[in-house]
Amino acid sequence: MYFHRQELQHKATPDAPDAVYARKLQEVLGGQYGEITVALQYQFQAWNMHIPGKYRDLVFGIGAEEMGHVEMLAVMIAQLLEKSPLGVTEDAVQDDPTVAAIVGGTDVQHAIVAGAGARAVDSNGNPWMGSYLTSSGNLLADFQANANAEMQGRLQVARLYHMTQDHGVRDLLAFLLARDTMHQNQWLAASAELMEEGVEALPVPSNFPLTKEERDVAYQYINFSDGAAAAEGRWASGPTPDGHGEFSYVPEPEPGVPMPPPTHPDARFYGTTDVPNIVEKAAGGIQDAMTKE
Amino acid sequence: MYFHRQELQHKATPDAPDAVYARKLQEVLGGQYGEITVALQYQFQAWNMHIPGKYRDLVFGIGAEEMGHVEMLAVMIAQLLEKSPLGVTEDAVQDDPTVAAIVGGTDVQHAIVAGAGARAVDSNGNPWMGSYLTSSGNLLADFQANANAEMQGRLQVARLYHMTQDHGVRDLLAFLLARDTMHQNQWLAASAELMEEGVEALPVPSNFPLTKEERDVAYQYINFSDGAAAAEGRWASGPTPDGHGEFSYVPEPEPGVPMPPPTHPDARFYGTTDVPNIVEKAAGGIQDAMTKE
Amino acid sequence: MYFHRQELQHKATPDAPDAVYARKLQEVLGGQYGEITVALQYQFQAWNMHIPGKYRDLVFGIGAEEMGHVEMLAVMIAQLLEKSPLGVTEDAVQDDPTVAAIVGGTDVQHAIVAGAGARAVDSNGNPWMGSYLTSSGNLLADFQANANAEMQGRLQVARLYHMTQDHGVRDLLAFLLARDTMHQNQWLAASAELMEEGVEALPVPSNFPLTKEERDVAYQYINFSDGAAAAEGRWASGPTPDGHGEFSYVPEPEPGVPMPPPTHPDARFYGTTDVPNIVEKAAGGIQDAMTKE
Amino acid sequence: MYFHRQELQHKATPDAPDAVYARKLQEVLGGQYGEITVALQYQFQAWNMHIPGKYRDLVFGIGAEEMGHVEMLAVMIAQLLEKSPLGVTEDAVQDDPTVAAIVGGTDVQHAIVAGAGARAVDSNGNPWMGSYLTSSGNLLADFQANANAEMQGRLQVARLYHMTQDHGVRDLLAFLLARDTMHQNQWLAASAELMEEGVEALPVPSNFPLTKEERDVAYQYINFSDGAAAAEGRWASGPTPDGHGEFSYVPEPEPGVPMPPPTHPDARFYGTTDVPNIVEKAAGGIQDAMTKE
Amino acid sequence: MYFHRQELQHKATPDAPDAVYARKLQEVLGGQYGEITVALQYQFQAWNMHIPGKYRDLVFGIGAEEMGHVEMLAVMIAQLLEKSPLGVTEDAVQDDPTVAAIVGGTDVQHAIVAGAGARAVDSNGNPWMGSYLTSSGNLLADFQANANAEMQGRLQVARLYHMTQDHGVRDLLAFLLARDTMHQNQWLAASAELMEEGVEALPVPSNFPLTKEERDVAYQYINFSDGAAAAEGRWASGPTPDGHGEFSYVPEPEPGVPMPPPTHPDARFYGTTDVPNIVEKAAGGIQDAMTKE
Amino acid sequence: MYFHRQELQHKATPDAPDAVYARKLQEVLGGQYGEITVALQYQFQAWNMHIPGKYRDLVFGIGAEEMGHVEMLAVMIAQLLEKSPLGVTEDAVQDDPTVAAIVGGTDVQHAIVAGAGARAVDSNGNPWMGSYLTSSGNLLADFQANANAEMQGRLQVARLYHMTQDHGVRDLLAFLLARDTMHQNQWLAASAELMEEGVEALPVPSNFPLTKEERDVAYQYINFSDGAAAAEGRWASGPTPDGHGEFSYVPEPEPGVPMPPPTHPDARFYGTTDVPNIVEKAAGGIQDAMTKE
Repeated sequence: MYFHRQELQHKATPDAPDAVYARKLQEVLGGQYGEITVALQYQFQAWNMHIPGKYRDLVFGIGAEEMGHVEMLAVMIAQLLEKSPLGVTEDAVQDDPTVAAIVGGTDVQHAIVAGAGARAVDSNGNPWMGSYLTSSGNLLADFQANANAEMQGRLQVARLYHMTQDHGVRDLLAFLLARDTMHQNQWLAASAELMEEGVEALPVPSNFPLTKEERDVAYQYINFSDGAAAAEGRWASGPTPDGHGEFSYVPEPEPGVPMPPPTHPDARFYGTTDVPNIVEKAAGGIQDAMTKE
Repeated sequence: MYFHRQELQHKATPDAPDAVYARKLQEVLGGQYGEITVALQYQFQAWNMHIPGKYRDLVFGIGAEEMGHVEMLAVMIAQLLEKSPLGVTEDAVQDDPTVAAIVGGTDVQHAIVAGAGARAVDSNGNPWMGSYLTSSGNLLADFQANANAEMQGRLQVARLYHMTQDHGVRDLLAFLLARDTMHQNQWLAASAELMEEGVEALPVPSNFPLTKEERDVAYQYINFSDGAAAAEGRWASGPTPDGHGEFSYVPEPEPGVPMPPPTHPDARFYGTTDVPNIVEKAAGGIQDAMTKE
Repeated sequence: MYFHRQELQHKATPDAPDAVYARKLQEVLGGQYGEITVALQYQFQAWNMHIPGKYRDLVFGIGAEEMGHVEMLAVMIAQLLEKSPLGVTEDAVQDDPTVAAIVGGTDVQHAIVAGAGARAVDSNGNPWMGSYLTSSGNLLADFQANANAEMQGRLQVARLYHMTQDHGVRDLLAFLLARDTMHQNQWLAASAELMEEGVEALPVPSNFPLTKEERDVAYQYINFSDGAAAAEGRWASGPTPDGHGEFSYVPEPEPGVPMPPPTHPDARFYGTTDVPNIVEKAAGGIQDAMTKE
Repeated sequence: MYFHRQELQHKATPDAPDAVYARKLQEVLGGQYGEITVALQYQFQAWNMHIPGKYRDLVFGIGAEEMGHVEMLAVMIAQLLEKSPLGVTEDAVQDDPTVAAIVGGTDVQHAIVAGAGARAVDSNGNPWMGSYLTSSGNLLADFQANANAEMQGRLQVARLYHMTQDHGVRDLLAFLLARDTMHQNQWLAASAELMEEGVEALPVPSNFPLTKEERDVAYQYINFSDGAAAAEGRWASGPTPDGHGEFSYVPEPEPGVPMPPPTHPDARFYGTTDVPNIVEKAAGGIQDAMTKE
Repeated sequence: MYFHRQELQHKATPDAPDAVYARKLQEVLGGQYGEITVALQYQFQAWNMHIPGKYRDLVFGIGAEEMGHVEMLAVMIAQLLEKSPLGVTEDAVQDDPTVAAIVGGTDVQHAIVAGAGARAVDSNGNPWMGSYLTSSGNLLADFQANANAEMQGRLQVARLYHMTQDHGVRDLLAFLLARDTMHQNQWLAASAELMEEGVEALPVPSNFPLTKEERDVAYQYINFSDGAAAAEGRWASGPTPDGHGEFSYVPEPEPGVPMPPPTHPDARFYGTTDVPNIVEKAAGGIQDAMTKE
Repeated sequence: MYFHRQELQHKATPDAPDAVYARKLQEVLGGQYGEITVALQYQFQAWNMHIPGKYRDLVFGIGAEEMGHVEMLAVMIAQLLEKSPLGVTEDAVQDDPTVAAIVGGTDVQHAIVAGAGARAVDSNGNPWMGSYLTSSGNLLADFQANANAEMQGRLQVARLYHMTQDHGVRDLLAFLLARDTMHQNQWLAASAELMEEGVEALPVPSNFPLTKEERDVAYQYINFSDGAAAAEGRWASGPTPDGHGEFSYVPEPEPGVPMPPPTHPDARFYGTTDVPNIVEKAAGGIQDAMTKE
């Protein structure tokens, strides 16, 4: 069950309206790595989890916090849009270049569809999608996905920080940056704990028997481009992070195997085959008819 | 420039057709974490990279290999579909439960649209989308995304391994599992190298000044659910992975700040406000008219 | 701020696993009119609202409840999937028609992607989309959208009720049906209250001056099909629900106005125009070349 | 069968070109609540309807009219784009701020893809989607959806009215506003008629036995937020619109039931469980390997 | 303006219900190359056309016919679904393999969402999308797109013909096949007419000056794969269809040019560069922290 | 297998940065008819092909070349973005109209998400989708699709040519225009060869027996609009391109057949039928309750 309190975790009020910036801020609300993504991702991981205890408590606790982050961003965007100009025409643009920028830089659906309100979309107006989520049931894999989301998310917030001088906005972003710092650290720590406790290990999934994979290519760097410097990285020699092998460098792939012969499906799929494919041969053809008067 | 050789990196021929399995295999071809995703993700990271040398050679080299994995899966799927039944009707189902399963378990677009060919979709027929990709320009963030993709990918292949007894299919999956093992190790090794060389550090992005974030909440686990066990994890006490702080556990959030007052946009957005909103008051209302004869 | 309690509003445990039904139940979790839609829709309406007080408290209060409904359905789906078969092959199907049904009737991404977990998708595996939401800032319009969502939602739950005999599932659905009954009533009551208080009226938006619309066609039923019975409805005669007019029936539309002449954009768009469009005339044409040896 | 007449229901010619406005007008052509949506929604409801007569004649008649509205908007947009600038570069922007606005404010696909023509997209360029439609077979539910669509649609047209001073455009919008007034009234009248005739009733679907839902929560307002004012609304006390009960106000939810225990799916899903999950324990772990030289 | 007549162009009644086939038939209603696509494509081409007369009359005339094809398919699907089973459970499957097939083979949204009605989706339940349309303003290009759509469409109908034995369905498909035959011929004839009249020519767009393209590679077949047989085709030697040149065969591409150096964007994008990227160096690193107790 | 060489087929370096143009150029990288589409389309056609030899070598060879075109465009876009402004605020706009244009005209995700890098999206930021591809197994149909893609693609490049004065960009576009000229010619030549060799013929699919279609309407132009000029085209009289018939002109369609009666699905779908639909009649109705105090 979820309970809502009509308070915000942190102040979320801009110094001044800025409809262009409101559009940009949509990215971290409704984008691929926005707050809706992490809020729902952590909650789905909680609902799908197979073990009780600290790991489940963790994803529940952070998932609910992230819902509050969605809220702070939505409220901030609504305020940034509050004075959004409505009736801008080309005439108005003649007199004021700021207006020109606003004409182009805003999300016009903020005005037309939402009446100066926040939306569940990214900074280009693409609707948020359920396919942004990752919840596989394997915690080492999923915590890696979570760390990834927090890294991309903090990177985007850092970029947005420089796109405004508004102190109120920056104050909120400074808070979100710090929480993303926490969450990056937290998912990496949780990944480490899974491995130290022997619950999971590398490679993911660790309980698929390694003997069933083709072990002789499991630690080879096989080069399919002509850049030789890849041989210099620690992925090309030395022990592997999973503790099971040694990296090696293969400058070009082994000769491959021949392609299997083309398929020959049922004739009623009407695919083109080497069997003559024409039931009733046309007298002429497309080109004849096209040149006829 | 890309060059194609009409060979496969590994044998990709099933022992027998299986249209139901062909549909399932689409997941690792055209799904969120399928081979199209990693192939294009690594190549976009290469095209967008800001430094020459080993890291760029790495993403170029693996990106091209993954294109070959796309190819092996597509060729495999086409062969699994080769004998896909076409004209199945409800009558046929009466006699043969296998046929019944095929009716329901196949991707019908394999037959109707592709004529028994592979498609750029996942196992539910959702088209592959460019929004699956991650290429941010920050290599520590992106290699984390890559490790995530390889973990989710190997997990899916491991599950698919148990969904067939076909030796030809399992032989290819054993190869892909091993390459995913390599790629998981590789991206983790590359992440470690970035940090050891001092090129990047945690938190991502490391060159955003920490002083600009709200440091006092940067290492707090703040609990928004009622599961107390989250206090037991290493994300709740002890040093943080980024080396800059100590985790602390906050059992419930501080009192929040009041919500800002509701916005009052331009009246011409026709939103509902506390100013009377009716220009020309209707004599009655919806309910009156609805009850009139 | 949102707080989570690790309890459910109502029991959500099936009597027995049923992976086929789990797929169907996804519709009311992640479909167009599923619980994710109403949960986020009400919350966005709250964040975007322009007046404090009872209407905002209403959408906040119900929005948080709906998050708990999302949770109950996700937990239910995970349990329905708990014994989901993994390694089903065509051989297995030969022996057991139930297995055949499961092969075809399940969402294969439940197994391959989520490891027997719930997902943010509908019953056909389409990801949930932000474009399902409606939050316009006009409360009469939005409460109409909410009533619509609750009607479609309850209709789907009623259908799903008959697709299972499982008492645990039906017990949860009986609860959801009742809450949808409440929410239908609630949004209609809230709409009525908006009108009674004179805050809003029909037509939406009521504060756009009626004098600015083309009033002579504002209450005409104009018939563009050849079904004459439409003249018999109360939309064809009598007073209109908005209290401003009388319906009239127009059996066929007035003669229209001529289409404006075709546009002639800049020649550098290379559209086909009545000005000869060929810069350098080809000696022959496609058809000549195609017939040449 | 559909027949087309090369006339328009109303004049649709702008006074002057305006590519920026053309983009905005796309919302009511190809957006969630644009004319394509209502045109196809009404026609699908007609094709799927279970009763002959006035209700089916109604949706057929209006569906065909809406196709003509799609046409008027498309023709208008093409004319607004007719003089759309093509070769705008940053140099040109230096001299003329109007051009700057146009650079940013237009839908660039209007130029690049459609050659100054209308498209089946919304004002942010998102393609129209079949998932915008509602056609459930239950007429009370669907007419509610229709009323909703006409309310959102008229609201958007009213906003667009203020975004231009062009008399030709406003003339068309005044016509569309009036037709939306009619259609709002019409769907509400049709809903009322369904109920008066006893064909349908509240709650939707009315012929699902109320005794099968959990009646004791069917009229409770249960508060999950901390805003107390929701108790003041008519949704919190008094008779319910469906005529079956009395609203009551529950200031906070009853204690919930415990969450069911976590699921334990087949081990071959490789989810993380409390059973040790590691087949072949790695000698070290990710962290060891990552720090090794 | 569009007028609807409550008749069908051809009989559209199945002999018997078949919910599995109804799902398949959705492909040619709401798929990439279904009737909604061609209906709207032709109409958008008409609305965007730059010349009056026969070509515009053509697209208007056929566009309206295709709307009637959408209708016939929708009505057919509704009838195929009429006896669609609703309450199928796993128990029922035990007794009847036909039921098993139906469980898996139907579009479950037909039942849950549409109440046994047709939907604007393809055979996998993907919603129809505006991005399926092509309307560029260049008639030679667009008629090529139309011919393509009719070819893919007729191919799919031919496949569907063999997936049923129902005479009523086949009777409708035989009609649609014939109309697709007409429409293929028609678009090819119209393309030829455009060229014969000198309105358009190859290559598209023909009025872009050929001198501005890099003519020395305009007729080279450049081989990037190792299949030598491509040299045998008429695309490798002889005159080109556009009448402007001679094909030549280039067995492997010329040496390329070096890649440009990597980009160095503004440091505030926080991309990884060869300039040390760390503002405040962490004492340790991720791996240190992860191994610490 | 694919091999990458760190060279470009043609120089791809702009004279100067231009973030606005970078956005536009995304269309031919990641749009419906961009290079990702043709690259993957040709490769899927190769993987799915049913015959070895020249046709398969052709699609493999061109598919790999197109991957190199994707690369050139991505590299070009990254360079155009290299000096993309980051921290633009409304203040800055006051002083410089160029900046105003950039605020509005850029793809803000280029900055926020990709850190000044290319993305797999079109010029409006819509992600590339697998549903853009066509690979049916029938080569005449698919080569028609390919010719269409090259025509639309070259048209878009020609338009983009006039949207910049940058010599470096135009130099690359001149190269791409020439290759599109080649590829248009090539697919038309390949189509002609298929027909000359008797492998395929018109109509597609040519081996579906014509006797099974309803031949009497196979060459009729049936007019559903009121434009009489369509009778003047070669699609209205004379021999048909497929060589099997003569076009005829039907000024208006034959009288249609009556619509089948409405469907009556299972009552548990709760659709509205002419059977009274109310299980437990409400005492009042929505309207009564709404008017009650």
